[in-house]
Amino acid sequence: MPTVPTDHLAGFRGKHVLVTGGLGFIGSNLAHRLVDLGADVLIVDSLIPEYGGNVFNVHTIEDRLRVNIADMRDEHGLRYLVQEQDIIFNLAGQVSHTDSMIDPYTDLEINARSQLSLLEACRHGNPAAKIIFASTRQIYGRPTYLPVDERHPLQPTDVNGINKLAGEWYHIVYHNVYGLRAVSLRLTNTFGPRMRIRDARQTFIGWWIRQLLEGQTLHIFGDGLQVRDFNYVDDVVEAMLMAAAHDVADGQIYNLGGDEPINLINLARLMIEVNGGGDFALKPFPDDRKRIDIGDFYGDYRKIRSKLGWRPQVGLREGLTRTIEFFRTHREHYL
Amino acid sequence: MPTVPTDHLAGFRGKHVLVTGGLGFIGSNLAHRLVDLGADVLIVDSLIPEYGGNVFNVHTIEDRLRVNIADMRDEHGLRYLVQEQDIIFNLAGQVSHTDSMIDPYTDLEINARSQLSLLEACRHGNPAAKIIFASTRQIYGRPTYLPVDERHPLQPTDVNGINKLAGEWYHIVYHNVYGLRAVSLRLTNTFGPRMRIRDARQTFIGWWIRQLLEGQTLHIFGDGLQVRDFNYVDDVVEAMLMAAAHDVADGQIYNLGGDEPINLINLARLMIEVNGGGDFALKPFPDDRKRIDIGDFYGDYRKIRSKLGWRPQVGLREGLTRTIEFFRTHREHYL
Repeated sequence: MPTVPTDHLAGFRGKHVLVTGGLGFIGSNLAHRLVDLGADVLIVDSLIPEYGGNVFNVHTIEDRLRVNIADMRDEHGLRYLVQEQDIIFNLAGQVSHTDSMIDPYTDLEINARSQLSLLEACRHGNPAAKIIFASTRQIYGRPTYLPVDERHPLQPTDVNGINKLAGEWYHIVYHNVYGLRAVSLRLTNTFGPRMRIRDARQTFIGWWIRQLLEGQTLHIFGDGLQVRDFNYVDDVVEAMLMAAAHDVADGQIYNLGGDEPINLINLARLMIEVNGGGDFALKPFPDDRKRIDIGDFYGDYRKIRSKLGWRPQVGLREGLTRTIEFFRTHREHYL
Repeated sequence: MPTVPTDHLAGFRGKHVLVTGGLGFIGSNLAHRLVDLGADVLIVDSLIPEYGGNVFNVHTIEDRLRVNIADMRDEHGLRYLVQEQDIIFNLAGQVSHTDSMIDPYTDLEINARSQLSLLEACRHGNPAAKIIFASTRQIYGRPTYLPVDERHPLQPTDVNGINKLAGEWYHIVYHNVYGLRAVSLRLTNTFGPRMRIRDARQTFIGWWIRQLLEGQTLHIFGDGLQVRDFNYVDDVVEAMLMAAAHDVADGQIYNLGGDEPINLINLARLMIEVNGGGDFALKPFPDDRKRIDIGDFYGDYRKIRSKLGWRPQVGLREGLTRTIEFFRTHREHYL
């Protein structure tokens, strides 16, 4: 397998880097990587209980970075926090699809208004900063063709998808109109150490991992034949570093995506095998999930591969092995 | 010219109809039509000064309908107001592109959050209501092909376009998930009696009409060759009535569009001719407008023509004649 380029990594040494949502799953993995690369890291996180923030995620590096607890909806606070940052990884968000249907206003506040706050803060206080936004494949809705590339129509199936779409496009418009150096990465299902396993809010994989470790039966909604793709978190972190390092990414939207699309029954079998035990059962879709389900999905990541040289490096089996191993050791901190 | 079907019009008699933004340009023209058709009309309007609301717009029918001044951001008020309404024409919105860049938060509140308020109010208090949402061609951004049909990529050029996109898609999602009978019409430039002429916030045509009537030179930004299409307000009102009357429209998105795309120089010439005098001059684009300008645009309305039988009936010259005549008589109420 060809390896991805690494020339860009030296450039993070000494850089001032802000990570919003930095106590969360992807944000904290990114923070670990940035600290190792010698960056001066500031985390902003709201620690809203239903989201992914968890102080344990940075406990081994807490003396090597700064953490500022703040809500992104507060533009005034952000104006101070974005000052003199070279790079802003903008990962803060509400990710639960079902929560967005129960409380659409909060989803709007977090996923749309907060993004405006950050962009306005940068426009007025730090227009030179590079901004990497964590978008989602959810904005495509039910695919009309596979694999889904960046030209696929945007037809979200839930309020979360709509608000994330707005959040992404604020970044693009602030690039086009004000020249802010913003990039959007549309993430697919991401998994790995430090993910939320307390419930299925972040992804069902987190919940399945917890159930496996606790000896519970995994439940698959529907016929289990729906296909999804997955990225191990280290690969997503790498894509973010590449997007940050390359000017050619400014104003662009890139899909991520996995090399091994797999249906949920086969995913459950693989996870059970990696875990060394467990079982699963099919279950009818709960009504509230069926209506917002996107069916089969896997992403086409050829654009970021050709422009930035990114491709996933960690296979599904290897990634699941590392993830289950992590939670076997640290489960108690994630319940 | 084939005429549009009219069988659906009898159905409005005695219907309870809510018009949000009903003191504004299109809303008030719609209210006049509905009152004439025998509907029981309730207008909700915030009368925010920068928007299109003007009590003069309904002064000849004020004893034949009810007006409730309220801000759509208030879900509690809406819950009461939507009760027992058969049809809701949802036209309230902030329409200025430049204002949306100066104050993106207010645009978000009005064009996104308020739509959620209305839909939540209906979901909980009146799930059977038919809802017609006034969307905009602004959500397409700069066309990648012409004429622009409903499959054209959504790539708004300004914050207003993003928030209107979100507002539209809440309607579609609430249809798909909760079965609300929502329809979205993507309007192009609309003009006619009762439009805002105080400034260019609603469209530049309103501003041009005022300038013509006051003997001022019309200013065209850029080379004047940019092409646009236009609908006379009565045609837009007709499309809304059709969308309301036909179940086949539920959950659908339809473009409107004009039959006579025209560049701005030729439009200025036509308006001067209709007015019986005036002149125009080319002027460099102001920076804030250039960056969000969409270039050439005209819409493909074949979908609504084939599904609902709509097509514009009033030509550009005839529409401009009626409009200028209206403001020649009533200008003082619109300054």
